[in-house]
Amino acid sequence: MCEEVVGVSAISFANRGIERRVTTPFNAPSDTCIACGACAYVCPTGAISIEDIKGRQVLHQELYLGPTTAIRVPFMQAIPNVPFIDKDACIHFKTENCKLCEKACEPQAINHEMTDEYEEIDVGAAILTTGFELFDCSRIPRYGYGRFDNVLTSLEFEHLCHASGPTGGKVLLQDGNKPESLAILHCVGSRDKNYKSYCSRVCCMYAMKFAHLVHEKTDAHIYEFYIDLRAFGKGYEEFYNRMQGEGVNFIRGRGAEVTDVALTPEEEGKLIIRCEDTLIGMVRRIPVDMVVLCPAMVARKDAEAVGKLFGVTLSQDGFFREQHPKLGPVSTDADGVFIAGACQSPKDIPDTVAQGAGAAGAVLSLGDYVTIEPIKSVIDEALCAGCKICISVCPYDAISYNQDKKISQIEEVLCKGCGACVAACSSGAANQQSFKDVQIYAEIEGALV
Amino acid sequence: MCEEVVGVSAISFANRGIERRVTTPFNAPSDTCIACGACAYVCPTGAISIEDIKGRQVLHQELYLGPTTAIRVPFMQAIPNVPFIDKDACIHFKTENCKLCEKACEPQAINHEMTDEYEEIDVGAAILTTGFELFDCSRIPRYGYGRFDNVLTSLEFEHLCHASGPTGGKVLLQDGNKPESLAILHCVGSRDKNYKSYCSRVCCMYAMKFAHLVHEKTDAHIYEFYIDLRAFGKGYEEFYNRMQGEGVNFIRGRGAEVTDVALTPEEEGKLIIRCEDTLIGMVRRIPVDMVVLCPAMVARKDAEAVGKLFGVTLSQDGFFREQHPKLGPVSTDADGVFIAGACQSPKDIPDTVAQGAGAAGAVLSLGDYVTIEPIKSVIDEALCAGCKICISVCPYDAISYNQDKKISQIEEVLCKGCGACVAACSSGAANQQSFKDVQIYAEIEGALV
Repeated sequence: MCEEVVGVSAISFANRGIERRVTTPFNAPSDTCIACGACAYVCPTGAISIEDIKGRQVLHQELYLGPTTAIRVPFMQAIPNVPFIDKDACIHFKTENCKLCEKACEPQAINHEMTDEYEEIDVGAAILTTGFELFDCSRIPRYGYGRFDNVLTSLEFEHLCHASGPTGGKVLLQDGNKPESLAILHCVGSRDKNYKSYCSRVCCMYAMKFAHLVHEKTDAHIYEFYIDLRAFGKGYEEFYNRMQGEGVNFIRGRGAEVTDVALTPEEEGKLIIRCEDTLIGMVRRIPVDMVVLCPAMVARKDAEAVGKLFGVTLSQDGFFREQHPKLGPVSTDADGVFIAGACQSPKDIPDTVAQGAGAAGAVLSLGDYVTIEPIKSVIDEALCAGCKICISVCPYDAISYNQDKKISQIEEVLCKGCGACVAACSSGAANQQSFKDVQIYAEIEGALV
Repeated sequence: MCEEVVGVSAISFANRGIERRVTTPFNAPSDTCIACGACAYVCPTGAISIEDIKGRQVLHQELYLGPTTAIRVPFMQAIPNVPFIDKDACIHFKTENCKLCEKACEPQAINHEMTDEYEEIDVGAAILTTGFELFDCSRIPRYGYGRFDNVLTSLEFEHLCHASGPTGGKVLLQDGNKPESLAILHCVGSRDKNYKSYCSRVCCMYAMKFAHLVHEKTDAHIYEFYIDLRAFGKGYEEFYNRMQGEGVNFIRGRGAEVTDVALTPEEEGKLIIRCEDTLIGMVRRIPVDMVVLCPAMVARKDAEAVGKLFGVTLSQDGFFREQHPKLGPVSTDADGVFIAGACQSPKDIPDTVAQGAGAAGAVLSLGDYVTIEPIKSVIDEALCAGCKICISVCPYDAISYNQDKKISQIEEVLCKGCGACVAACSSGAANQQSFKDVQIYAEIEGALV
């Protein structure tokens, strides 16, 4: 197998007689072996085993530690729901052999010669729906994420509850036992001046959904640690009432710490949540088996680069800035560029769907004309020194350099009249129409006299 | 004036010499007088006065107690922002005279002969945006609305703060003084099993806006009584932080009562809010000068009738039911009928604008075809007794009565397969395709065996 299919000669026979074994040369870890596992997979006697290098049981995190196969669907419920070949894991891309999958695929859908292609498409409008990232919980060390096996993020817990997840939908601890108690910590990294000061909007509701799932699947005691229970949408408050009826313990107070240092015999072997229960005004220690953290939804790392590409600026929280917080929640300052979903700010599915439909509607109702800003910048050709500073500060790519005249020029259709170039122009060549310095001074004088 | 213009002879001269006065016959309240006030308005000496029948100073409520003129814009910021003639108040519609406004209007825009017209318009789709009503705060007598002058609803307070409002935007008590302290009570009728169990979603934020306005306009101490502070949207939490910085007192606890019964000298002449401050676990009494109630947003009284007209059902909370709470927030079960805004559930301006754009987008992307439900009802002509019960229960007007055959018939394009007719049919003639009784029994048997 190793030689014929994979194209590597990493295993062979060693010893003689009844001692004869299949193993790597000299029974030592092999440099040639690519740890593909094919030999262990085809061996009918189970004589070959692949040693787990870390030696750690990876019950929950296996979805994250690496691919189980080189051909896979990128993630559950991916759209389009088709598999791709992970070039880093595929034997063929390491040894140029194998291609077993090609032989197995009846409709001959596998082609190892395909390469990624970049296509240029002319469009009249674009909707940015780049979504969000999750706050990295290990940035708050006191919650023990990454240190304690049974501290999970909400997305990991969602995988765990999923019928096609690593435990087939059962809520299990790393040791395979059912938890007797479980804590859900809201606002991890959200509503926290040290990390993200905004509210992530969706956590309260999915945290209660988790409580409901755990209640359904186990007999565990469930604790929700919250600051404000933000059940604001249609039917949400009703669900909150239902969860209180199901016996979920709602503790008003941000979890302060997750620790395994037991102070009493009951706390032995447990994770202890330390928190201030603000409704009784006491610091409490609550021992649980499993902790689910609800991390903040944060803007994607590439938001600034993508924004720059499309002429969309960012809000203070790092998400894309809408044209108007109340009246233009799907438009941006860039004509023809719209935003929808969590790339604008954290939001749940109903609000995302509504906003997405809104962005689509905005595109569909675009006329075959462009609305031009009445107040825009003008550059006095006689004064412009051609230093190009204005070009670098313009967020709308509205200024270009005229090589012949050696000056900067404004494309009136693109200019939004933000005034960045006016402030940056050191020679006073850039001015805003109707807002020239002399006009503003006159206004101030008029107001003061 | 009374005779020439208004066309009524309600006033005349009485007495003689220096006792001679203009008054009603025998100086008694006149049956002919229509209390138009024209005589008092034109009298240059102020000798004629209209007595306020109630004799109560109406500083705040004047906007609600009645029109100040018979021609007016229906409410501030109305769209379209044009005046209309209130036929109940207009002198012309009482006496067939007057028409002074016609003479005064230079562009001759006034026409007393115009009548309301009903127009029939053929449309391919409809978006219901009928909005909401406010919960009637007088239904909760312990808050004293309607009993204490200085207990206002949020909408009344909004009017009060408005630059074109009765006080020119000043925050004043009924006696014209500035309040030294002010309480804002969240969740009046919301999150309350006795009234509306849902959350009205917008109150937390506008209550904080009020606090900000009061802070800006007065030196009053401000108290916000809340259960959970639901600052969930983009920039909302930041605003909450800012309000805490402005010194607003946030008290976690629903206001229990507003009373004027003073127990201490400091409470004399004040309105006292009694509440449980859940964060210190104590019942408190906080004396204030003014109380603003944040009433629940409730479904319009005509929601059921309008829904019936368009084939849109209502959710348990009385608002229009969307097709799917997550995936279809702007569609309804009725093809071509969409909903947006607070008629679907309470929501704030950004979410309403996004949903409105979404509904518009859904209309714009309608194809020239109709999607038919795969599971629909069928009526067995041989079994149908023609009792018409199915017609009365069908929420989609999909069943009609065939006079010739004396049976009910289903319009397949309209039927949504809800099964209401199947449950109601006493002769067993109505059945759901693929869900006939015998099929369901077989399924149950299969599941149980």
